[in-house]
Amino acid sequence: MEPLRVGIAGLGTVGGGVLALLGEHGERLASIAGRRIEVVAVSARRRRKKRAAPIGQFEWHTDPLALARHPGVDVVLELIGGAEGVARKLCETALKNGKAVVTANKALLALHGTELARAAERAGKPLRFEAAVAGGIPIVKALREGLVGNRIEGVYGILNGTCNYILTEMRASRRDFAAVLAEAQAKGFAEADPSFDVDGIDAAHKLTILASLAFGCPVNFSAVHVEGIRQVSAIDIAHADEFNCRIKLLAIARMTERGLEQRVHPCLVPVNTAIAHVDGVINAVVAEGDYAGSTVFEGRGAGAGPTASAVAADLVDIAAGRHVYPFGVPTAKLKALRAAPMREHVSRYYIRLMVYDRPGVIAEVSAVLRDQRISIESLVQRGRAEAADRAVAVVLISHEVDEAAMRRAMERIGRLKSVVEPPCVIRIEQL
Amino acid sequence: MEPLRVGIAGLGTVGGGVLALLGEHGERLASIAGRRIEVVAVSARRRRKKRAAPIGQFEWHTDPLALARHPGVDVVLELIGGAEGVARKLCETALKNGKAVVTANKALLALHGTELARAAERAGKPLRFEAAVAGGIPIVKALREGLVGNRIEGVYGILNGTCNYILTEMRASRRDFAAVLAEAQAKGFAEADPSFDVDGIDAAHKLTILASLAFGCPVNFSAVHVEGIRQVSAIDIAHADEFNCRIKLLAIARMTERGLEQRVHPCLVPVNTAIAHVDGVINAVVAEGDYAGSTVFEGRGAGAGPTASAVAADLVDIAAGRHVYPFGVPTAKLKALRAAPMREHVSRYYIRLMVYDRPGVIAEVSAVLRDQRISIESLVQRGRAEAADRAVAVVLISHEVDEAAMRRAMERIGRLKSVVEPPCVIRIEQL
Repeated sequence: MEPLRVGIAGLGTVGGGVLALLGEHGERLASIAGRRIEVVAVSARRRRKKRAAPIGQFEWHTDPLALARHPGVDVVLELIGGAEGVARKLCETALKNGKAVVTANKALLALHGTELARAAERAGKPLRFEAAVAGGIPIVKALREGLVGNRIEGVYGILNGTCNYILTEMRASRRDFAAVLAEAQAKGFAEADPSFDVDGIDAAHKLTILASLAFGCPVNFSAVHVEGIRQVSAIDIAHADEFNCRIKLLAIARMTERGLEQRVHPCLVPVNTAIAHVDGVINAVVAEGDYAGSTVFEGRGAGAGPTASAVAADLVDIAAGRHVYPFGVPTAKLKALRAAPMREHVSRYYIRLMVYDRPGVIAEVSAVLRDQRISIESLVQRGRAEAADRAVAVVLISHEVDEAAMRRAMERIGRLKSVVEPPCVIRIEQL
Repeated sequence: MEPLRVGIAGLGTVGGGVLALLGEHGERLASIAGRRIEVVAVSARRRRKKRAAPIGQFEWHTDPLALARHPGVDVVLELIGGAEGVARKLCETALKNGKAVVTANKALLALHGTELARAAERAGKPLRFEAAVAGGIPIVKALREGLVGNRIEGVYGILNGTCNYILTEMRASRRDFAAVLAEAQAKGFAEADPSFDVDGIDAAHKLTILASLAFGCPVNFSAVHVEGIRQVSAIDIAHADEFNCRIKLLAIARMTERGLEQRVHPCLVPVNTAIAHVDGVINAVVAEGDYAGSTVFEGRGAGAGPTASAVAADLVDIAAGRHVYPFGVPTAKLKALRAAPMREHVSRYYIRLMVYDRPGVIAEVSAVLRDQRISIESLVQRGRAEAADRAVAVVLISHEVDEAAMRRAMERIGRLKSVVEPPCVIRIEQL
């Protein structure tokens, strides 16, 4: 049978990993797929960059769009990144020209996944994106095929390795966010501009894709409530330990009576859950199905190897002619779901206040909480301030309360004279 | 498109789960697969048994083989069980007659999987068995498709929920094996004849299948080294805790320089691993790939719901016409691998001796170990015997040593007059 001819756009870490994998495992994959997977053309920003694998043997194109129009290319592998611009244009053009598309681009899919899926259906060509979520963990296939027999009730997890690495290191070394972030940047675990990661946007992109697969709805990134981890301090991590919890940035999509919840924010998770023990750059996803129950997937979420592994799975499926709709069901059957308003979300909360150690502070705080009908499970103030002008931490755990009341209370507490900085509020997830 | 017509042989818990799932999610699955999945005929031991779902609407056959010969059946779903007899005959006949086969039968596949796969290839029909390993966890698909880009270096896990439940309960309630087994039987978590589970055979069947998928070799059940959990006592579990370990029945397949290791036995696993925290009836599988790294899968390994979820995934793949070789590669490409001799296996060991509390016992034991060149990392004897004729436990942790030397040493130590019962020896897995 004719080989499957691949054009790769983007030859960074991931592109290099894909070339290495196909070089090393090409023979075996050919016997599995029934045909060879052959890279025929490549495109990247710079031709003469130092690369792990030589690219001289491949046809070179300065313009990635040339791959989308190339008569000798069956599949465009898009590894450029970014929700708009070249990456989007490339995928659209490739599909329009009857080529399959494999992409690792979570931003693109989170924002334009449904349109791209529709374009793929019109073209009768595959659109695959295993590499877009949780790297080496085959979670896209698991949700789309392996757990297809289930109505998914919830899907959640740790989808950003950078944040999980930072939170893990903060706990291990009792250092604060800024110090650990700087170290992570030096080690290459965090980008020079870390905001996509630490502000939760990357996790939200991935959650959007998982939610669409899990609930059979169009991607709806704008419905995701997103908070990052900048506000989490070493004090919070130490307190979480005392409550037998860990602090994790979770991405959670859950079907509720109020609609589909999609949210990304730091959480206190009980240590007796699998997710509490997922440390460092590891990713984890939990899928809750009505028949299978809870299934947990853990693995490396980024990097050349894991991402190449995901890309290879997609390429083999395409080479073997295994058809599947990009989001599991035909786009015409994707059902828009009401977004559950975050203000109605009910949770227990961890609240840390930095207050001046003066008589009456607790009374003031308590009065605000009482007025919002927020009842408190525990309150801890440890030690005394070293001086009258130094703040101490007061930590409260609330009973269940809705988000709107909590926001009102925090806004008022933040205005109290004895309260030094905006309250740090972290939701406690039961899972 | 014509519906996919299914004949179900065996209407126990799992069969009932499949009927319930197809009833509940049939519409959605039809839109995903592009055609309906329709149960047309059933067979079971007794027609008029009380069942969760009524079966009156299906054509009834007393002889399951009738399904394999039925012109109106496209897929035979084999839920009878057992490595030989009717189940085997049914699958063989169905494939011979050009029908697809879906089965949850791990014993059958562990012993005759390669022949069945060959028969399926000859017939050009699918043979699928997601339900045979780890229930609701889509691990067969993950190894066969999701991680296809990797050379798998090792695959291991907790594959028997009954054993894991017993070990978890022994730890939680500090009771011994027999008491917990009896309770598990009363609760329905263990069979009246528990030997398939507690002697490790069931886990070994599943491991055989995983190894074939992971390493591209014919199934080779007879090469699996199998030990069960009957020898593990409450004392051992308490001691493991002190060494920051848990005792788990692990099934491990690993490529070594000496060949393919396949072994099922109790292990001490460090508490800082994911697998140490997998408790109760939950199953877990870890796959180590050269590109993806370690990927962990956890979920419910048995029961109507999880097994039905797995069966549904297979049926949808078949209905959608997605072709895959039963063990990933064509049977002609499965490569027989040398089995690594267990006697050469190197491990650290936990050794518990029950000895009379007399002067000189430790000297005798130490002399035997020295003669076999087994060096000891630690030795713990706690408390004194209540009377001269009562034994006390002595626990040793060895450095790395090969199995042959350990067996010789244990055989000699078991013959010492001061040693009351055969030594309990448990391997310490680094993972």
